[in-house]
Amino acid sequence: MPNISKRALQMPASPIRKLAPLAVQAKARGIKVYHLNIGQPDVASPPNALHALHSFQRTVLEYSPSQGLLSYRQKLAGYYEKYHISLSPDDIIVTTGGSEAVLFAFLSCLNPGDEIIIPEPFYANYMALAVSAGVHLLPLSTTIETGFALPPVEQFEKLITPSTRALLICNPNNPTGYLYTPDEMNQIRNLVKRHDLYLFSDEVYREFIYTDSPFISALHLDGIDDHVVVIDSVSKRYSECGLRIGALVTRNASVRAAVMKLCQARLSPPLLGQIAAEASMEADAPYLAAARQEYEARRDSLVRGLNRIPGVYSPQPMGAFYTVAHLPVDDAERFCAWCLTDFSYQGQTVMLAPAAGFYATPNAGRQQVRIAYVLCRHDLEQALDVLARALQAYPGRQTGKS
Amino acid sequence: MPNISKRALQMPASPIRKLAPLAVQAKARGIKVYHLNIGQPDVASPPNALHALHSFQRTVLEYSPSQGLLSYRQKLAGYYEKYHISLSPDDIIVTTGGSEAVLFAFLSCLNPGDEIIIPEPFYANYMALAVSAGVHLLPLSTTIETGFALPPVEQFEKLITPSTRALLICNPNNPTGYLYTPDEMNQIRNLVKRHDLYLFSDEVYREFIYTDSPFISALHLDGIDDHVVVIDSVSKRYSECGLRIGALVTRNASVRAAVMKLCQARLSPPLLGQIAAEASMEADAPYLAAARQEYEARRDSLVRGLNRIPGVYSPQPMGAFYTVAHLPVDDAERFCAWCLTDFSYQGQTVMLAPAAGFYATPNAGRQQVRIAYVLCRHDLEQALDVLARALQAYPGRQTGKS
Repeated sequence: MPNISKRALQMPASPIRKLAPLAVQAKARGIKVYHLNIGQPDVASPPNALHALHSFQRTVLEYSPSQGLLSYRQKLAGYYEKYHISLSPDDIIVTTGGSEAVLFAFLSCLNPGDEIIIPEPFYANYMALAVSAGVHLLPLSTTIETGFALPPVEQFEKLITPSTRALLICNPNNPTGYLYTPDEMNQIRNLVKRHDLYLFSDEVYREFIYTDSPFISALHLDGIDDHVVVIDSVSKRYSECGLRIGALVTRNASVRAAVMKLCQARLSPPLLGQIAAEASMEADAPYLAAARQEYEARRDSLVRGLNRIPGVYSPQPMGAFYTVAHLPVDDAERFCAWCLTDFSYQGQTVMLAPAAGFYATPNAGRQQVRIAYVLCRHDLEQALDVLARALQAYPGRQTGKS
Repeated sequence: MPNISKRALQMPASPIRKLAPLAVQAKARGIKVYHLNIGQPDVASPPNALHALHSFQRTVLEYSPSQGLLSYRQKLAGYYEKYHISLSPDDIIVTTGGSEAVLFAFLSCLNPGDEIIIPEPFYANYMALAVSAGVHLLPLSTTIETGFALPPVEQFEKLITPSTRALLICNPNNPTGYLYTPDEMNQIRNLVKRHDLYLFSDEVYREFIYTDSPFISALHLDGIDDHVVVIDSVSKRYSECGLRIGALVTRNASVRAAVMKLCQARLSPPLLGQIAAEASMEADAPYLAAARQEYEARRDSLVRGLNRIPGVYSPQPMGAFYTVAHLPVDDAERFCAWCLTDFSYQGQTVMLAPAAGFYATPNAGRQQVRIAYVLCRHDLEQALDVLARALQAYPGRQTGKS
């Protein structure tokens, strides 16, 4: 029997989905599980998307162009215009979700063995994508005490080696909800320019910002057009995670040519998803305003509720729909599993994502969880109550910081 | 300005799509282009697929499970049953097209630097997928004179080095239309077993076989369950290339566990595609019988027509919907480009895929093209007439073999 690959062994299991079998078992025992582990919103997708599917009239469900439908890329260019980002449809490559955009950015820009500096905690799936591309993530620590703000630029520079080729940020951040300030973005710009690095900027939560601070896209930064590759997606924007429609955006023509080879090798992004995503843009403004308002209200009740539970602490996230919270437990992964296997309150329990999987540094984040505020406020309140009771009952309760 | 990656430079442009800009220009000049270059059939997708989209009633276009919808995997298990292949839904992982299944098979089973033996000519996009995974394709030559039959097993064994870890076949074959015989499949089985290799078998054209010889799936082969990874897709089966729904099928639980890490990292295959693909299976038998009959008639008229053109030779393909033909030209890529830039007959021209891109061996296949018989017979006849006239007019005509 042949062996599986070393990279498959290196690849961490997804902290977001690894406890899924335990949740299935809990449900089989009749327990209601509040899913706070995954960024799958309960917010309805734009009705225009469904109308487009209902009135879809082609007889052949054929390939789309490898770069994506031109009509959709034209509308996307119009969308970025609203952020004062000027792009041609040629600058935009439609991908199969943001995930494919990340993988294609790594494969096109980096050689095996190259390093990417990334503020930690970070979106856990970057790790498996980095292992797939044979590149290394160098974590730059940020801490819950400072609300996960970026450390001074000197900290970045300490990490740089001759193999460092890129910086990867997620803004607003998954998992922390942090929004990079104009000052921080400017520091990043200078760093990228000084060390000739790529700047990969995952901006899929751009629509969900709950502060008056301006959103600074990597595409706004001056003089680094050839360095910037932006990752985008409609998954969160329109609550269309299942469409698998993302985008890779760059003004660097050489990078686009390299990415297009990968795009042609996989032939086409999903046709139906593009049609639904394009239709979703028709009623952009009212839909997004309502969604933003809803998430902001959820954030407020979640964070208030969390900070009321003894021993729990959550900073105030400024964007996206996650927070990383400290729990008074020995080990958050053990606690999360225990909630699914050994605990229920009035037939209910909670599923959270252990935060350790969002850190590359060993043992970091062991008392933290990522919570997605993707449930309606009523369910969030219920889930908070269940969580408070679980923390009371948990045998591994630990109030000090380990 | 940072460099693009070495692997991006190594990656060949797709021979199927690289001439596409020339076709766009030809169309802009008002010329009708017969597309024989790409496996995009004009055959209608099953109406059930469209009905499923028209009656789709979810309000949230959410993630599907990373492994794919259970109901769809259950139906797929039933589909394989018709081929006397017994599988559980757990053995099946739904992927984003067959392309993702190939990439995930490489990433999960092989280490960078590992080698895969592959009969040549082969589906050109394997090359970019292999470069993505850092693995090497070792071509095993087959020739147009023998109809692209497999060479004796000793030829395979000559290629094997300590780094050889897998064999990749496409059966029925793209680009040649060759169907592996029971004897050949048995040889492959013995070879895989003797050298402890993986057998990656791309069987996406299984439904399109025009001979009485039996189809032998890699999943039929005895005693190598842990070696076999089958690639599948609905793209060709149901003329649903745009859905991007494929599958990776293996009875090897360790491989599945490794592949699932990659699946979780990209979260989900396309939801809408799965719904359409699942609905397509409802009227399987009459739909597939009609499609097979249509392709067989096309094959017959294409191959007959090709062999009537002076200096052209095509073997008789037994399956899929391609043939590799020899043309009396100096260089098929030059000829294919010339057809788009310098030639038209009554306002029409043809687009073919130069076969050199389907060979890894330098200079192999330079007088050959891949022709996909994906157009209706009337258009095929027209295209053959245009091709014959193009070959007469082409200044680089060359009747001998170079």
